[in-house]
Amino acid sequence: MKPIIAVIGGSTCTPEETVVAEETGRLLAHHGAVLVCGGLGGVMEAAAKGARANGGTTVGILPGADPRAANAYIDIPLATGLGEMRNFLIVRTAHALIAIGGGVGTLSEIVLAQRIGKPVVGLHDSFRTTVDIPRVESAAEAVQWALGRAQQEVV
Amino acid sequence: MKPIIAVIGGSTCTPEETVVAEETGRLLAHHGAVLVCGGLGGVMEAAAKGARANGGTTVGILPGADPRAANAYIDIPLATGLGEMRNFLIVRTAHALIAIGGGVGTLSEIVLAQRIGKPVVGLHDSFRTTVDIPRVESAAEAVQWALGRAQQEVV
Amino acid sequence: MKPIIAVIGGSTCTPEETVVAEETGRLLAHHGAVLVCGGLGGVMEAAAKGARANGGTTVGILPGADPRAANAYIDIPLATGLGEMRNFLIVRTAHALIAIGGGVGTLSEIVLAQRIGKPVVGLHDSFRTTVDIPRVESAAEAVQWALGRAQQEVV
Amino acid sequence: MKPIIAVIGGSTCTPEETVVAEETGRLLAHHGAVLVCGGLGGVMEAAAKGARANGGTTVGILPGADPRAANAYIDIPLATGLGEMRNFLIVRTAHALIAIGGGVGTLSEIVLAQRIGKPVVGLHDSFRTTVDIPRVESAAEAVQWALGRAQQEVV
Repeated sequence: MKPIIAVIGGSTCTPEETVVAEETGRLLAHHGAVLVCGGLGGVMEAAAKGARANGGTTVGILPGADPRAANAYIDIPLATGLGEMRNFLIVRTAHALIAIGGGVGTLSEIVLAQRIGKPVVGLHDSFRTTVDIPRVESAAEAVQWALGRAQQEVV
Repeated sequence: MKPIIAVIGGSTCTPEETVVAEETGRLLAHHGAVLVCGGLGGVMEAAAKGARANGGTTVGILPGADPRAANAYIDIPLATGLGEMRNFLIVRTAHALIAIGGGVGTLSEIVLAQRIGKPVVGLHDSFRTTVDIPRVESAAEAVQWALGRAQQEVV
Repeated sequence: MKPIIAVIGGSTCTPEETVVAEETGRLLAHHGAVLVCGGLGGVMEAAAKGARANGGTTVGILPGADPRAANAYIDIPLATGLGEMRNFLIVRTAHALIAIGGGVGTLSEIVLAQRIGKPVVGLHDSFRTTVDIPRVESAAEAVQWALGRAQQEVV
Repeated sequence: MKPIIAVIGGSTCTPEETVVAEETGRLLAHHGAVLVCGGLGGVMEAAAKGARANGGTTVGILPGADPRAANAYIDIPLATGLGEMRNFLIVRTAHALIAIGGGVGTLSEIVLAQRIGKPVVGLHDSFRTTVDIPRVESAAEAVQWALGRAQQEVV
């Protein structure tokens, strides 16, 4: 089974977050992981763009009922019609999560991950004084961490 | 329409939290509000006990599929079978929320409330250094705050 | 624990269905049951009107996020924001269901009830040639059937 | 955007249904569609096996929280933890559906598809006297029908 790694973060983001999200997507695809994200813009789009550039599979779990809301780099747009409750599905379906930047939606995903015991790592996430999760400083470290934890989840 | 107020907090709690949750439930019922909670023990049970003591209606939105998991003070146990995703339904269906004590499940509810713009107030909640929400110091103030905000929601 | 009985049926209905739904609601309240329905018009509104007239408690599990979409006889409008997926919650949270008239949404609820083993009875339902469920000919019989089955569920 | 086609049917099935489901999966992959299914055995497994044999991508939307419950031919197991409510997500996320054989779970998916206006075709489905949907007699016709309708959905 391929590892399924979620990259979570804001639908708008800084240039630095864009760069690190795209690099994370590239590395995930390089290591054969499936990328899951919320399917919209910002960090989600950058990560999907990176994964797509390396031939990876990208899944977007969308809040609305229209798959065409997905960004251009999503192979499999899952239009749930669930609104923000789709955040829960991202957390539930990923083997591990990488948080980059992010606002309150991303924070809800981190907290839900903690709630159900799903591994989540912060990579320049916005919540350093808010939630106590492992942190790393580079896309390479984040991907290594997530793949290591995913392996424990799926074995 | 009666206001629907959620009391959120841990399934285990301190004696002080029990007292304040029960007092909150009593006051909500006194003012004609419907109490919504997660239906289990701790803060949820204390709030429901207080509401019931004053003749209020108590709704428990349960994670499992068996309504018998509800505490003894729940009039209407809604057994969703949704697991932790039921937290979202508590947030969605309340007009306003009061957080007492709480662990990471409660934090997820606070953050989801912020995410969808639902009013939430902290009453001796556990997240003073974590999330930026209004705070009050007594059950009476919490109930007044929640009812005031609920009124704006439902008008 | 009070029995929780769902009355399911179309948001538009015939005068005959209106009469039988209202009578069903009245009898459910008379016997101390909580009425759950989809919260909108037609059969849902008639059943809630009948229950309210007898002092019963009425719960409306709404598809949208706005509690004000509930009909005038709903005490507790639960605005789920889940769209048609809210049908599943009606089925899940009821101890037994009574189907009156109905279109394809009602059929989905009957089939979901069969799928998870929840008791459902047809009272002049629209699906006599479609699904194999018990049928009765009067509101009194439907309520007796549903309360009997609910008792087995909750004990 | 690749078309996303759901194949729905029983977790146990006849040898004839197995053959037609596998052929359907093969043809969907041949035409570049993503296969979505419930991820378990029977029709779901046969369709995924066929799609995988032709290099297609297979998504399994599972009822439980453990991705390891997926059959061996699922590339992307989405473990929702939603129970039977996951049926709704299959219907919601597909552009079109093909029903093969099936019991009451499959019927619930057909009816939910009708409810939200999602195209669904029967291929030797079990509900010829139950629901009024288009029917075809071969895997090739079913795939042609589904891809034609999906194209209208996603354009």
